[in-house]
Amino acid sequence: MQVVLIGSGNVATHLGKALHNASFHIIQVRSSQMASANLLAQQLNAEPIQDFEKINRTADLYFFCGKDDLLPISIQQMPSVKGLVLHTSGACAMNIFGSKFNNFGVLYPLQTFSKNTAIDFHSVPLIYEANTEVNLKKLRSIAHLLSQNTQHCSSEQRLHIHLAAVFASNFTNHCYAIAENILAQQGLSLDLLKPLIKETAHKIMLNSPQQSQTGPAIRNDNSIIEKHLAELQDKDSYREIYQLFSKSISQT
Amino acid sequence: MQVVLIGSGNVATHLGKALHNASFHIIQVRSSQMASANLLAQQLNAEPIQDFEKINRTADLYFFCGKDDLLPISIQQMPSVKGLVLHTSGACAMNIFGSKFNNFGVLYPLQTFSKNTAIDFHSVPLIYEANTEVNLKKLRSIAHLLSQNTQHCSSEQRLHIHLAAVFASNFTNHCYAIAENILAQQGLSLDLLKPLIKETAHKIMLNSPQQSQTGPAIRNDNSIIEKHLAELQDKDSYREIYQLFSKSISQT
Repeated sequence: MQVVLIGSGNVATHLGKALHNASFHIIQVRSSQMASANLLAQQLNAEPIQDFEKINRTADLYFFCGKDDLLPISIQQMPSVKGLVLHTSGACAMNIFGSKFNNFGVLYPLQTFSKNTAIDFHSVPLIYEANTEVNLKKLRSIAHLLSQNTQHCSSEQRLHIHLAAVFASNFTNHCYAIAENILAQQGLSLDLLKPLIKETAHKIMLNSPQQSQTGPAIRNDNSIIEKHLAELQDKDSYREIYQLFSKSISQT
Repeated sequence: MQVVLIGSGNVATHLGKALHNASFHIIQVRSSQMASANLLAQQLNAEPIQDFEKINRTADLYFFCGKDDLLPISIQQMPSVKGLVLHTSGACAMNIFGSKFNNFGVLYPLQTFSKNTAIDFHSVPLIYEANTEVNLKKLRSIAHLLSQNTQHCSSEQRLHIHLAAVFASNFTNHCYAIAENILAQQGLSLDLLKPLIKETAHKIMLNSPQQSQTGPAIRNDNSIIEKHLAELQDKDSYREIYQLFSKSISQT
Protein backbone atom coordinates (compact mmCIF):
# COMPACT_ATOMS: atom_id res chain seq x y z
CA MET A 1 0.00 0.00 0.00
CA GLN A 2 1.27 3.44 -0.96
CA VAL A 3 1.06 6.13 1.69
CA VAL A 4 1.44 9.93 1.71
CA LEU A 5 2.18 11.58 5.07
CA ILE A 6 1.06 15.17 5.47
CA GLY A 7 3.05 16.52 8.41
CA SER A 8 6.50 15.74 9.83
CA GLY A 9 6.01 16.34 13.56
CA ASN A 10 5.76 13.93 16.51
CA VAL A 11 2.74 11.97 15.29
CA ALA A 12 3.92 11.81 11.66
CA THR A 13 7.33 10.56 12.83
CA HIS A 14 6.05 7.74 15.05
CA LEU A 15 3.15 6.75 12.76
CA GLY A 16 5.41 6.91 9.70
CA LYS A 17 7.95 4.56 11.30
CA ALA A 18 5.20 2.17 12.41
CA LEU A 19 3.75 2.09 8.87
CA HIS A 20 7.24 1.62 7.41
CA ASN A 21 7.95 -1.27 9.83
CA ALA A 22 4.62 -2.88 8.84
CA SER A 23 5.80 -2.82 5.18
CA PHE A 24 3.64 0.06 4.00
CA HIS A 25 5.37 2.06 1.29
CA ILE A 26 5.64 5.72 2.35
CA ILE A 27 6.07 7.51 -0.98
CA GLN A 28 5.94 11.18 0.14
CA VAL A 29 6.31 13.31 3.26
CA ARG A 30 4.77 16.74 2.90
CA SER A 31 5.62 19.63 5.23
CA SER A 32 5.74 23.41 5.01
CA GLN A 33 9.15 23.09 6.68
CA MET A 34 11.46 21.39 4.18
CA ALA A 35 14.22 20.63 6.69
CA SER A 36 11.77 18.63 8.76
CA ALA A 37 10.23 16.94 5.68
CA ASN A 38 13.74 15.99 4.47
CA LEU A 39 14.72 14.46 7.79
CA LEU A 40 11.65 12.24 8.09
CA ALA A 41 11.51 11.37 4.37
CA GLN A 42 15.11 10.18 4.52
CA GLN A 43 14.31 7.81 7.39
CA LEU A 44 11.28 6.43 5.54
CA ASN A 45 12.85 6.25 2.09
CA ALA A 46 10.26 8.73 0.79
CA GLU A 47 10.19 11.90 -1.30
CA PRO A 48 10.07 15.13 0.73
CA ILE A 49 7.69 17.76 -0.69
CA GLN A 50 6.45 21.19 0.35
CA ASP A 51 3.79 21.97 -2.25
CA PHE A 52 0.36 20.30 -1.99
CA GLU A 53 0.21 20.39 -5.82
CA LYS A 54 3.04 17.80 -5.92
CA ILE A 55 1.09 15.25 -3.90
CA ASN A 56 0.78 11.91 -5.68
CA ARG A 57 -2.88 11.46 -6.74
CA THR A 58 -2.86 7.65 -6.87
CA ALA A 59 -1.72 6.67 -3.37
CA ASP A 60 -3.90 4.33 -1.29
CA LEU A 61 -3.68 6.27 1.98
CA TYR A 62 -3.22 9.91 2.95
CA PHE A 63 -2.54 10.75 6.59
CA PHE A 64 -3.03 14.32 7.86
CA CYS A 65 -0.80 14.38 10.97
CA GLY A 66 -0.50 18.14 11.51
CA LYS A 67 -1.94 20.39 14.18
CA ASP A 68 -5.72 20.52 14.51
CA ASP A 69 -5.98 24.21 13.69
CA LEU A 70 -4.09 23.68 10.41
CA LEU A 71 -6.40 20.87 9.29
CA PRO A 72 -9.08 22.99 7.53
CA ILE A 73 -6.54 24.90 5.43
CA SER A 74 -4.55 21.73 4.63
CA ILE A 75 -7.72 19.99 3.45
CA GLN A 76 -8.55 23.00 1.29
CA GLN A 77 -5.12 22.91 -0.38
CA MET A 78 -5.14 19.15 -0.87
CA PRO A 79 -5.91 17.92 -4.43
CA SER A 80 -8.87 15.58 -4.97
CA VAL A 81 -7.89 11.94 -4.58
CA LYS A 82 -9.65 8.58 -4.64
CA GLY A 83 -7.57 6.97 -1.89
CA LEU A 84 -8.59 6.83 1.76
CA VAL A 85 -7.95 10.19 3.44
CA LEU A 86 -7.38 10.10 7.21
CA HIS A 87 -6.58 12.46 10.02
CA THR A 88 -4.98 11.52 13.34
CA SER A 89 -6.60 14.08 15.64
CA GLY A 90 -8.39 13.21 18.86
CA ALA A 91 -10.61 16.27 18.93
CA CYS A 92 -11.57 16.82 15.27
CA ALA A 93 -14.80 15.29 13.93
CA MET A 94 -14.53 12.93 10.95
CA ASN A 95 -16.93 14.98 8.83
CA ILE A 96 -14.34 17.74 8.43
CA PHE A 97 -13.49 15.75 5.24
CA GLY A 98 -17.10 15.33 4.12
CA SER A 99 -17.58 17.88 1.37
CA LYS A 100 -14.32 17.24 -0.48
CA PHE A 101 -13.55 13.50 -0.40
CA ASN A 102 -15.51 10.29 -0.94
CA ASN A 103 -13.31 7.99 1.15
CA PHE A 104 -12.29 9.25 4.53
CA GLY A 105 -11.87 8.44 8.19
CA VAL A 106 -9.82 8.91 11.35
CA LEU A 107 -6.96 6.95 12.93
CA TYR A 108 -6.16 8.52 16.32
CA PRO A 109 -3.10 7.11 18.13
CA LEU A 110 -3.82 7.64 21.83
CA GLN A 111 -0.35 8.29 23.17
CA THR A 112 1.99 11.17 24.09
CA PHE A 113 4.68 11.30 21.42
CA SER A 114 8.03 13.06 21.48
CA LYS A 115 10.30 12.76 18.45
CA ASN A 116 13.28 11.46 20.42
CA THR A 117 11.45 9.04 22.72
CA ALA A 118 11.03 5.51 21.39
CA ILE A 119 7.51 4.08 21.59
CA ASP A 120 6.34 0.50 21.18
CA PHE A 121 3.67 1.32 18.62
CA HIS A 122 2.11 -2.16 18.92
CA SER A 123 0.79 -1.21 22.35
CA VAL A 124 -0.55 2.24 21.37
CA PRO A 125 -4.37 2.27 21.36
CA LEU A 126 -5.61 3.20 17.88
CA ILE A 127 -9.08 4.75 17.78
CA TYR A 128 -10.60 4.54 14.31
CA GLU A 129 -13.68 5.60 12.38
CA ALA A 130 -14.56 5.68 8.65
CA ASN A 131 -17.34 7.05 6.44
CA THR A 132 -18.51 3.77 4.85
CA GLU A 133 -18.60 0.10 5.79
CA VAL A 134 -16.01 -0.68 3.11
CA ASN A 135 -13.63 2.00 4.37
CA LEU A 136 -14.21 0.91 7.96
CA LYS A 137 -13.23 -2.65 7.08
CA LYS A 138 -10.12 -1.41 5.29
CA LEU A 139 -9.15 0.88 8.17
CA ARG A 140 -9.72 -1.86 10.75
CA SER A 141 -7.28 -4.11 8.88
CA ILE A 142 -4.70 -1.33 8.75
CA ALA A 143 -5.11 -0.60 12.47
CA HIS A 144 -4.64 -4.31 13.30
CA LEU A 145 -1.38 -4.36 11.35
CA LEU A 146 -0.04 -1.45 13.43
CA SER A 147 -1.25 -2.22 16.95
CA GLN A 148 -2.67 -4.94 19.19
CA ASN A 149 -4.92 -2.37 20.83
CA THR A 150 -7.57 -0.95 18.48
CA GLN A 151 -11.06 0.41 19.03
CA HIS A 152 -13.83 1.69 16.77
CA CYS A 153 -15.36 4.90 18.19
CA SER A 154 -17.63 7.70 16.98
CA SER A 155 -16.30 11.27 16.67
CA GLU A 156 -18.24 12.17 19.83
CA GLN A 157 -16.67 9.31 21.80
CA ARG A 158 -13.23 10.18 20.45
CA LEU A 159 -13.59 13.79 21.63
CA HIS A 160 -14.36 12.48 25.13
CA ILE A 161 -11.37 10.12 24.99
CA HIS A 162 -9.19 13.07 23.99
CA LEU A 163 -10.59 15.20 26.82
CA ALA A 164 -9.98 12.37 29.31
CA ALA A 165 -6.42 12.04 27.94
CA VAL A 166 -5.79 15.74 28.61
CA PHE A 167 -6.60 15.14 32.29
CA ALA A 168 -4.73 11.82 32.53
CA SER A 169 -1.60 12.98 30.70
CA ASN A 170 -1.24 16.74 30.10
CA PHE A 171 -2.57 17.84 33.50
CA THR A 172 -0.76 15.00 35.27
CA ASN A 173 2.50 16.10 33.67
CA HIS A 174 1.82 19.67 34.81
CA CYS A 175 1.39 18.34 38.37
CA TYR A 176 4.85 16.79 38.01
CA ALA A 177 6.19 20.16 36.80
CA ILE A 178 4.68 21.99 39.79
CA ALA A 179 6.19 19.39 42.14
CA GLU A 180 9.58 19.90 40.49
CA ASN A 181 9.31 23.69 41.00
CA ILE A 182 8.35 23.34 44.67
CA LEU A 183 11.33 21.04 45.28
CA ALA A 184 13.73 23.26 43.33
CA GLN A 185 12.93 26.16 45.67
CA GLN A 186 14.39 24.02 48.49
CA GLY A 187 17.37 22.90 46.44
CA LEU A 188 15.89 19.42 46.07
CA SER A 189 15.53 17.25 42.97
CA LEU A 190 12.43 15.65 41.44
CA ASP A 191 14.38 12.36 41.67
CA LEU A 192 13.12 12.12 45.25
CA LEU A 193 9.53 11.79 43.98
CA LYS A 194 10.16 9.36 41.11
CA PRO A 195 9.38 6.16 43.08
CA LEU A 196 6.13 7.81 44.22
CA ILE A 197 5.21 8.92 40.69
CA LYS A 198 5.86 5.40 39.34
CA GLU A 199 3.81 3.78 42.09
CA THR A 200 0.90 6.24 41.66
CA ALA A 201 0.63 5.33 37.96
CA HIS A 202 1.18 1.63 38.69
CA LYS A 203 -1.52 1.44 41.39
CA ILE A 204 -4.36 2.27 39.00
CA MET A 205 -3.39 -0.55 36.66
CA LEU A 206 -4.90 -2.84 39.30
CA ASN A 207 -7.43 -0.72 41.22
CA SER A 208 -9.65 2.16 40.19
CA PRO A 209 -8.27 5.69 40.87
CA GLN A 210 -11.25 6.35 43.12
CA GLN A 211 -10.14 3.47 45.39
CA SER A 212 -6.48 4.49 45.16
CA GLN A 213 -6.91 8.08 46.37
CA THR A 214 -4.70 8.94 49.36
CA GLY A 215 -3.55 12.22 50.92
CA PRO A 216 -4.86 14.99 53.18
CA ALA A 217 -7.85 16.01 51.01
CA ILE A 218 -9.52 12.57 50.96
CA ARG A 219 -8.94 12.26 54.75
CA ASN A 220 -10.24 15.83 55.30
CA ASP A 221 -7.00 16.51 57.21
CA ASN A 222 -7.40 20.28 57.39
CA SER A 223 -4.36 20.91 59.58
CA ILE A 224 -2.06 19.63 56.80
CA ILE A 225 -4.04 21.44 54.09
CA GLU A 226 -3.62 24.73 56.00
CA LYS A 227 0.15 24.15 56.34
CA HIS A 228 0.45 23.48 52.60
CA LEU A 229 -1.58 26.55 51.66
CA ALA A 230 0.63 28.68 53.91
CA GLU A 231 3.70 27.44 51.99
CA LEU A 232 2.01 28.47 48.73
CA GLN A 233 1.15 32.00 49.78
CA ASP A 234 3.47 33.54 47.16
CA LYS A 235 2.27 31.22 44.41
CA ASP A 236 -1.26 32.24 43.48
CA SER A 237 -1.77 29.81 40.61
CA TYR A 238 -0.47 26.80 42.59
CA ARG A 239 -2.62 27.76 45.57
CA GLU A 240 -5.71 27.99 43.37
CA ILE A 241 -4.99 24.55 41.90
CA TYR A 242 -4.38 23.13 45.38
CA GLN A 243 -7.67 24.49 46.71
CA LEU A 244 -9.71 23.39 43.71
CA PHE A 245 -8.27 19.86 43.76
CA SER A 246 -8.69 19.48 47.51
CA LYS A 247 -12.34 20.52 47.19
CA SER A 248 -12.92 18.20 44.24
CA ILE A 249 -11.22 15.22 45.96
CA SER A 250 -13.12 15.71 49.23
CA GLN A 251 -16.43 15.78 47.31
CA THR A 252 -15.84 12.39 45.64
CA MET B 1 16.65 -3.57 68.45
CA GLN B 2 13.25 -3.57 70.11
CA VAL B 3 10.53 -1.55 68.43
CA VAL B 4 7.05 -0.36 69.44
CA LEU B 5 4.68 0.61 66.61
CA ILE B 6 1.99 3.14 67.45
CA GLY B 7 -0.63 2.78 64.72
CA SER B 8 -1.77 -0.12 62.55
CA GLY B 9 -2.74 1.60 59.29
CA ASN B 10 -1.06 1.69 55.87
CA VAL B 11 2.26 3.21 56.99
CA ALA B 12 2.51 1.07 60.16
CA THR B 13 1.83 -2.06 58.11
CA HIS B 14 4.48 -1.43 55.45
CA LEU B 15 7.07 0.03 57.81
CA GLY B 16 6.43 -2.75 60.34
CA LYS B 17 7.02 -5.44 57.71
CA ALA B 18 10.17 -3.69 56.48
CA LEU B 19 11.54 -3.48 60.05
CA HIS B 20 10.60 -7.12 60.67
CA ASN B 21 12.36 -8.19 57.45
CA ALA B 22 15.46 -6.23 58.51
CA SER B 23 15.54 -8.27 61.76
CA PHE B 24 14.23 -5.58 64.08
CA HIS B 25 12.17 -7.04 66.87
CA ILE B 26 8.67 -5.51 66.89
CA ILE B 27 7.51 -6.11 70.45
CA GLN B 28 4.20 -4.22 70.47
CA VAL B 29 1.60 -2.79 68.07
CA ARG B 30 -0.62 -0.17 69.68
CA SER B 31 -3.93 0.90 68.14
CA SER B 32 -7.25 2.25 69.41
CA GLN B 33 -8.83 -0.37 67.15
CA MET B 34 -7.96 -3.78 68.61
CA ALA B 35 -9.02 -5.78 65.54
CA SER B 36 -6.53 -3.85 63.45
CA ALA B 37 -3.78 -4.07 66.14
CA ASN B 38 -4.36 -7.84 66.40
CA LEU B 39 -4.07 -8.37 62.66
CA LEU B 40 -0.79 -6.51 62.28
CA ALA B 41 0.71 -7.78 65.56
CA GLN B 42 0.06 -11.35 64.44
CA GLN B 43 1.99 -10.78 61.20
CA LEU B 44 4.89 -9.24 63.10
CA ASN B 45 4.97 -11.65 66.02
CA ALA B 46 4.21 -8.77 68.41
CA GLU B 47 1.86 -8.04 71.30
CA PRO B 48 -1.26 -6.05 70.33
CA ILE B 49 -2.20 -3.34 72.84
CA GLN B 50 -4.80 -0.60 73.04
CA ASP B 51 -3.80 1.29 76.18
CA PHE B 52 -0.83 3.69 76.08
CA GLU B 53 -0.14 2.75 79.73
CA LYS B 54 0.82 -0.76 78.57
CA ILE B 55 3.57 0.48 76.29
CA ASN B 56 6.95 -1.09 77.07
CA ARG B 57 9.22 1.60 78.59
CA THR B 58 12.53 0.01 77.63
CA ALA B 59 12.24 -0.37 73.85
CA ASP B 60 14.91 1.19 71.59
CA LEU B 61 12.54 2.72 69.04
CA TYR B 62 8.98 4.05 69.10
CA PHE B 63 7.30 4.85 65.78
CA PHE B 64 4.19 7.05 65.69
CA CYS B 65 2.57 6.01 62.38
CA GLY B 66 -0.93 7.41 62.89
CA LYS B 67 -2.74 10.33 61.27
CA ASP B 68 -1.17 13.76 61.66
CA ASP B 69 -4.12 15.24 63.52
CA LEU B 70 -3.94 12.44 66.13
CA LEU B 71 -0.24 13.01 66.79
CA PRO B 72 -0.53 15.69 69.54
CA ILE B 73 -2.99 13.64 71.61
CA SER B 74 -1.00 10.42 71.11
CA ILE B 75 2.19 12.14 72.27
CA GLN B 76 0.34 13.44 75.33
CA GLN B 77 -0.87 9.95 76.25
CA MET B 78 2.51 8.33 75.64
CA PRO B 79 4.55 7.47 78.78
CA SER B 80 8.03 8.98 79.16
CA VAL B 81 10.69 6.77 77.57
CA LYS B 82 14.43 6.94 76.98
CA GLY B 83 14.41 5.26 73.56
CA LEU B 84 14.33 7.13 70.26
CA VAL B 85 10.83 8.42 69.54
CA LEU B 86 9.98 8.96 65.85
CA HIS B 87 7.03 9.99 63.75
CA THR B 88 6.53 9.18 60.07
CA SER B 89 4.64 12.28 58.92
CA GLY B 90 5.65 14.39 55.94
CA ALA B 91 4.00 17.58 57.16
CA CYS B 92 4.60 17.60 60.91
CA ALA B 93 7.66 19.40 62.32
CA MET B 94 10.12 17.36 64.41
CA ASN B 95 9.81 19.69 67.41
CA ILE B 96 6.28 18.43 68.10
CA PHE B 97 8.19 15.99 70.39
CA GLY B 98 10.41 18.64 71.97
CA SER B 99 8.91 19.30 75.38
CA LYS B 100 8.29 15.67 76.34
CA PHE B 101 11.18 13.52 75.09
CA ASN B 102 14.97 13.78 75.03
CA ASN B 103 15.60 11.54 72.04
CA PHE B 104 13.41 12.12 69.01
CA GLY B 105 13.30 12.48 65.26
CA VAL B 106 11.39 11.77 62.05
CA LEU B 107 11.50 8.96 59.50
CA TYR B 108 9.17 9.85 56.63
CA PRO B 109 8.67 7.15 53.97
CA LEU B 110 7.87 9.03 50.77
CA GLN B 111 5.47 6.65 49.08
CA THR B 112 1.74 6.02 48.61
CA PHE B 113 0.86 2.97 50.68
CA SER B 114 -2.21 0.77 50.55
CA LYS B 115 -2.45 -2.18 52.90
CA ASN B 116 -3.04 -4.73 50.16
CA THR B 117 -0.51 -3.46 47.63
CA ALA B 118 2.99 -4.89 47.94
CA ILE B 119 5.81 -2.33 47.96
CA ASP B 120 9.55 -2.86 47.53
CA PHE B 121 10.51 -0.92 50.65
CA HIS B 122 14.21 -0.89 49.66
CA SER B 123 13.38 1.63 46.93
CA VAL B 124 11.16 3.88 49.07
CA PRO B 125 12.89 7.23 49.76
CA LEU B 126 13.27 7.68 53.53
CA ILE B 127 13.52 11.30 54.68
CA TYR B 128 15.02 11.52 58.16
CA GLU B 129 15.85 14.10 60.83
CA ALA B 130 16.84 13.84 64.52
CA ASN B 131 17.31 16.19 67.47
CA THR B 132 20.98 15.44 68.24
CA GLU B 133 24.06 14.31 66.33
CA VAL B 134 24.03 10.97 68.19
CA ASN B 135 20.37 10.34 67.33
CA LEU B 136 20.95 11.44 63.74
CA LYS B 137 23.76 8.90 63.38
CA LYS B 138 21.58 6.17 64.88
CA LEU B 139 18.63 7.07 62.63
CA ARG B 140 20.83 7.20 59.53
CA SER B 141 21.99 3.63 60.21
CA ILE B 142 18.41 2.47 60.67
CA ALA B 143 17.31 4.20 57.45
CA HIS B 144 20.17 2.52 55.54
CA LEU B 145 19.06 -0.89 56.78
CA LEU B 146 15.56 -0.29 55.41
CA SER B 147 16.14 1.47 52.09
CA GLN B 148 18.77 2.24 49.46
CA ASN B 149 17.27 5.70 49.04
CA THR B 150 17.67 7.90 52.14
CA GLN B 151 17.99 11.65 52.62
CA HIS B 152 18.55 13.91 55.61
CA CYS B 153 16.20 16.94 55.46
CA SER B 154 15.02 19.68 57.80
CA SER B 155 11.36 19.87 58.87
CA GLU B 156 10.90 22.83 56.50
CA GLN B 157 12.33 20.88 53.54
CA ARG B 158 10.23 17.85 54.46
CA LEU B 159 7.04 19.94 54.44
CA HIS B 160 7.91 21.08 50.91
CA ILE B 161 8.61 17.50 49.83
CA HIS B 162 5.23 16.49 51.22
CA LEU B 163 3.52 19.37 49.42
CA ALA B 164 5.25 18.42 46.15
CA ALA B 165 4.17 14.80 46.73
CA VAL B 166 0.53 15.92 47.03
CA PHE B 167 0.77 17.45 43.53
CA ALA B 168 2.75 14.55 42.04
CA SER B 169 0.65 11.76 43.54
CA ASN B 170 -2.69 12.78 45.10
CA PHE B 171 -3.63 15.35 42.44
CA THR B 172 -2.31 13.15 39.66
CA ASN B 173 -4.48 10.30 40.91
CA HIS B 174 -7.47 12.64 40.96
CA CYS B 175 -6.75 13.50 37.30
CA TYR B 176 -6.94 9.75 36.58
CA ALA B 177 -10.27 9.60 38.45
CA ILE B 178 -11.70 12.49 36.41
CA ALA B 179 -10.55 10.81 33.19
CA GLU B 180 -12.27 7.59 34.30
CA ASN B 181 -15.52 9.50 34.94
CA ILE B 182 -15.43 11.24 31.56
CA LEU B 183 -14.91 7.91 29.79
CA ALA B 184 -17.59 6.13 31.84
CA GLN B 185 -20.17 8.65 30.60
CA GLN B 186 -19.47 7.33 27.07
CA GLY B 187 -19.50 3.70 28.15
CA LEU B 188 -15.71 3.50 27.79
CA SER B 189 -13.12 2.06 30.16
CA LEU B 190 -10.03 3.67 31.68
CA ASP B 191 -8.09 0.73 30.19
CA LEU B 192 -7.94 2.75 26.96
CA LEU B 193 -5.78 5.37 28.71
CA LYS B 194 -3.44 3.04 30.61
CA PRO B 195 -0.65 2.99 27.99
CA LEU B 196 -0.81 6.81 27.95
CA ILE B 197 -0.72 7.05 31.76
CA LYS B 198 2.29 4.69 31.92
CA GLU B 199 4.16 6.60 29.23
CA THR B 200 3.42 10.00 30.83
CA ALA B 201 4.98 8.82 34.11
CA HIS B 202 7.83 7.07 32.28
CA LYS B 203 8.75 10.11 30.17
CA ILE B 204 9.75 12.23 33.15
CA MET B 205 12.18 9.58 34.40
CA LEU B 206 14.41 10.75 31.53
CA ASN B 207 13.39 14.33 30.76
CA SER B 208 12.06 17.14 32.94
CA PRO B 209 8.25 17.53 33.06
CA GLN B 210 8.63 21.03 31.63
CA GLN B 211 10.23 19.56 28.49
CA SER B 212 7.71 16.72 28.36
CA GLN B 213 4.57 18.87 28.32
CA THR B 214 2.27 18.14 25.36
CA GLY B 215 -1.39 18.91 24.61
CA PRO B 216 -3.61 21.81 23.50
CA ALA B 217 -2.72 24.19 26.37
CA ILE B 218 1.04 24.26 25.72
CA ARG B 219 0.37 24.72 21.97
CA ASN B 220 -2.25 27.43 22.68
CA ASP B 221 -4.66 25.44 20.52
CA ASN B 222 -7.80 27.35 21.49
CA SER B 223 -10.12 25.58 19.06
CA ILE B 224 -9.57 22.28 20.92
CA ILE B 225 -9.76 23.95 24.33
CA GLU B 226 -13.16 25.43 23.40
CA LYS B 227 -14.44 22.02 22.26
CA HIS B 228 -13.33 20.42 25.52
CA LEU B 229 -14.91 23.15 27.66
CA ALA B 230 -18.18 22.73 25.74
CA GLU B 231 -18.17 19.01 26.66
CA LEU B 232 -17.70 19.96 30.32
CA GLN B 233 -20.58 22.42 30.49
CA ASP B 234 -22.52 20.26 32.97
CA LYS B 235 -19.45 19.60 35.13
CA ASP B 236 -18.57 22.82 36.92
CA SER B 237 -15.69 21.47 39.01
CA TYR B 238 -14.03 19.70 36.07
CA ARG B 239 -14.42 22.81 33.90
CA GLU B 240 -12.80 24.96 36.60
CA ILE B 241 -9.88 22.54 36.88
CA TYR B 242 -9.54 22.43 33.09
CA GLN B 243 -9.43 26.22 32.80
CA LEU B 244 -7.01 26.71 35.67
CA PHE B 245 -4.59 24.04 34.38
CA SER B 246 -4.74 25.32 30.81
CA LYS B 247 -3.92 28.83 32.05
CA SER B 248 -1.12 27.58 34.27
CA ILE B 249 0.39 25.39 31.50
CA SER B 250 0.27 28.17 28.91
CA GLN B 251 2.06 30.53 31.32
CA THR B 252 5.04 28.16 31.82
